[in-house]
Amino acid sequence: MTNNKNSVGIVQTKYFNIEENIELESKKDFGPVQVAYETYGTLNENKDNAILLLHALTGDAHAAGFHSETDKKPGWWDDMVGPGKAFDTDKYFVICSNMLGGCSGTTGPCSINPETGTPYGLNFPVITIEDAVKVQKKLIDFLGVKKLIVAGGSMGGMQALEWSITHSDMVEAVIIIASTSRLSAQGIAFNAVGRNAILSDPYFNNGNYYNQEHQPSKGLSIARMIGHITYLCEESMHNKFGRKFKNEINGVDIPNFDFNIDFQVESYLAHQGQTFVDRFDANSYLYITKAVDYFDLAHKHGSLNAAFKKTNARFLVISFTSDWLFPTSQSKEIVQALIKAGRDVSFCEIESPCGHDAFLLEFETQTKIVKSFLAKNNGETNE
Amino acid sequence: MTNNKNSVGIVQTKYFNIEENIELESKKDFGPVQVAYETYGTLNENKDNAILLLHALTGDAHAAGFHSETDKKPGWWDDMVGPGKAFDTDKYFVICSNMLGGCSGTTGPCSINPETGTPYGLNFPVITIEDAVKVQKKLIDFLGVKKLIVAGGSMGGMQALEWSITHSDMVEAVIIIASTSRLSAQGIAFNAVGRNAILSDPYFNNGNYYNQEHQPSKGLSIARMIGHITYLCEESMHNKFGRKFKNEINGVDIPNFDFNIDFQVESYLAHQGQTFVDRFDANSYLYITKAVDYFDLAHKHGSLNAAFKKTNARFLVISFTSDWLFPTSQSKEIVQALIKAGRDVSFCEIESPCGHDAFLLEFETQTKIVKSFLAKNNGETNE
Repeated sequence: MTNNKNSVGIVQTKYFNIEENIELESKKDFGPVQVAYETYGTLNENKDNAILLLHALTGDAHAAGFHSETDKKPGWWDDMVGPGKAFDTDKYFVICSNMLGGCSGTTGPCSINPETGTPYGLNFPVITIEDAVKVQKKLIDFLGVKKLIVAGGSMGGMQALEWSITHSDMVEAVIIIASTSRLSAQGIAFNAVGRNAILSDPYFNNGNYYNQEHQPSKGLSIARMIGHITYLCEESMHNKFGRKFKNEINGVDIPNFDFNIDFQVESYLAHQGQTFVDRFDANSYLYITKAVDYFDLAHKHGSLNAAFKKTNARFLVISFTSDWLFPTSQSKEIVQALIKAGRDVSFCEIESPCGHDAFLLEFETQTKIVKSFLAKNNGETNE
Repeated sequence: MTNNKNSVGIVQTKYFNIEENIELESKKDFGPVQVAYETYGTLNENKDNAILLLHALTGDAHAAGFHSETDKKPGWWDDMVGPGKAFDTDKYFVICSNMLGGCSGTTGPCSINPETGTPYGLNFPVITIEDAVKVQKKLIDFLGVKKLIVAGGSMGGMQALEWSITHSDMVEAVIIIASTSRLSAQGIAFNAVGRNAILSDPYFNNGNYYNQEHQPSKGLSIARMIGHITYLCEESMHNKFGRKFKNEINGVDIPNFDFNIDFQVESYLAHQGQTFVDRFDANSYLYITKAVDYFDLAHKHGSLNAAFKKTNARFLVISFTSDWLFPTSQSKEIVQALIKAGRDVSFCEIESPCGHDAFLLEFETQTKIVKSFLAKNNGETNE
């Protein structure tokens, strides 16, 4: 743990159990569900100062702080969550939970199926963003929250949008960062190839690999490499690696002339792939990318405009210039439909060379924008 | 064979053998090499009316015409090659050969190593674009050609650039389409993930799979799917597939709620992957993508300007607005360096929604531009 006066400090992941079955969007009943979550700050007496953070594809409940005195790696949005930060824990009760289908404490394909005593694997039901929100709502009710602000980047933004429509009576403000109301064909294609790599791995074994000697690590690693190409952009890859070789002697590049790692960008991708398999479950990757592919507000509600007519919240939409996975054009689609639906919406496109990853990196600009937006919610003047 | 008066008709792939060893860029000696090639039209008396076409990543010697009366699929650039077409076989002697390292008749990793009597596999040497051109030069000399026009799209453009520098005494005109003088970090990354998928396939067997029951088809198929995402673009994928499902009943989309093919774009990719493994060799994919990654004229010659100072030809550079794999900016880099080197260069960016694939599809506009460029070569006025 670093000595940081703006840190929420040491936090613990907590667990909440939903005993009754949940009806999923696929019409299947599913349960029980355990939800891993963390909270930072204090719920006020009116129970109306809560912010629910929604994580991206491979995130978890650990959004801020450290898990122990010796923990070196803070939560995934630590730059944005803490005393005085964008999501100010002196003012707000900040909640983050691991998504249904995940592999970090919330019930997912690697959890034990109580009916069989073995991990679900591919017997886990296909879930959607709507299902994930349904589970989150149970947690929010359990915590006694009455009014809510929802915020998320990437897939987290999809969940925030879903919240704003399905629970419009409760959601007062929505922050959507680097997100979309539906993936493009290209986005589906990238996810599909990643899933293909996992499903093709000989150790995948139809999803029953948990107690095997080998795991579908190569397939999962390839899926992650594809992901990382889309999280960066040509400019950020050029700035980070260019065409630099891994090996050089006295400033002279040494090509291998074989199929080992030659270029620095190959080394980066291999590292990202390798570290990912140590922390993420291949089945969860299948289920969560599928939920992302299925998400399509216009398709579900007839039109995006019709979807947003069901909301009651104020919206902040943020995009990044170099994000080609969830490009500004898709954010603008959301903004235009919100305006058409008569909603109060602020939009900001942040100049950044960091690609889609910018929502995890460009915290200074995001902090200013988010603080200003939330201040209006409190009836404060802009800070 | 379709009844097309502008077709070159029935053609045969011919073979030329280089008995002596070739010194490769890696300093290894390699040989013998067989070269598969086709020619269309007639070499004139002065032997100065030849056009060498250079194929892209997975192309072959069969650029135009049909292989038999019952052949339904013409050569890969049939729209551009034939009597009265862009590369007019009434005027020109058009040559196309399969690249060194390929798998369509020219010596490559699937060829028999005469020293062992078994396929080379990974004992095939790593080759470069320079090496491929060295082999092509032997063919051109064998055919008695004295002056040459070189033309190619994508990787074919890289070879055309290499020709213009290495054989500046012979090359009079160069046509570079949807190409680059060096791949970006993002381009290397896509190739690297594709190679990774092949190398990770359990049936790859260190490249010795030719006489095995199973081939590394899944890995090769994944590599091809990644490739196809980069050959199209977001717009063309949207136009072709959008978010349309494969299954629908009475106009209502039916999601599978499993991991089978759901969206039409997934179906397209799976089909592309499957048909590719029937026609292409996984080892060749490794070697040829590696040659593409290594190609870097500025690195080799000190600067792009220095590279082009070694040329004597006129240049035509064509790019496509929606090509994000070899974007217009990279074509402009070539054009600017050519101008700086004092070369005669024409540049045209063609408006197209087809992505990188446009060089194989947008033949009408390309035909006009190429004809006009070649007419100047003949001292003709523009047609």
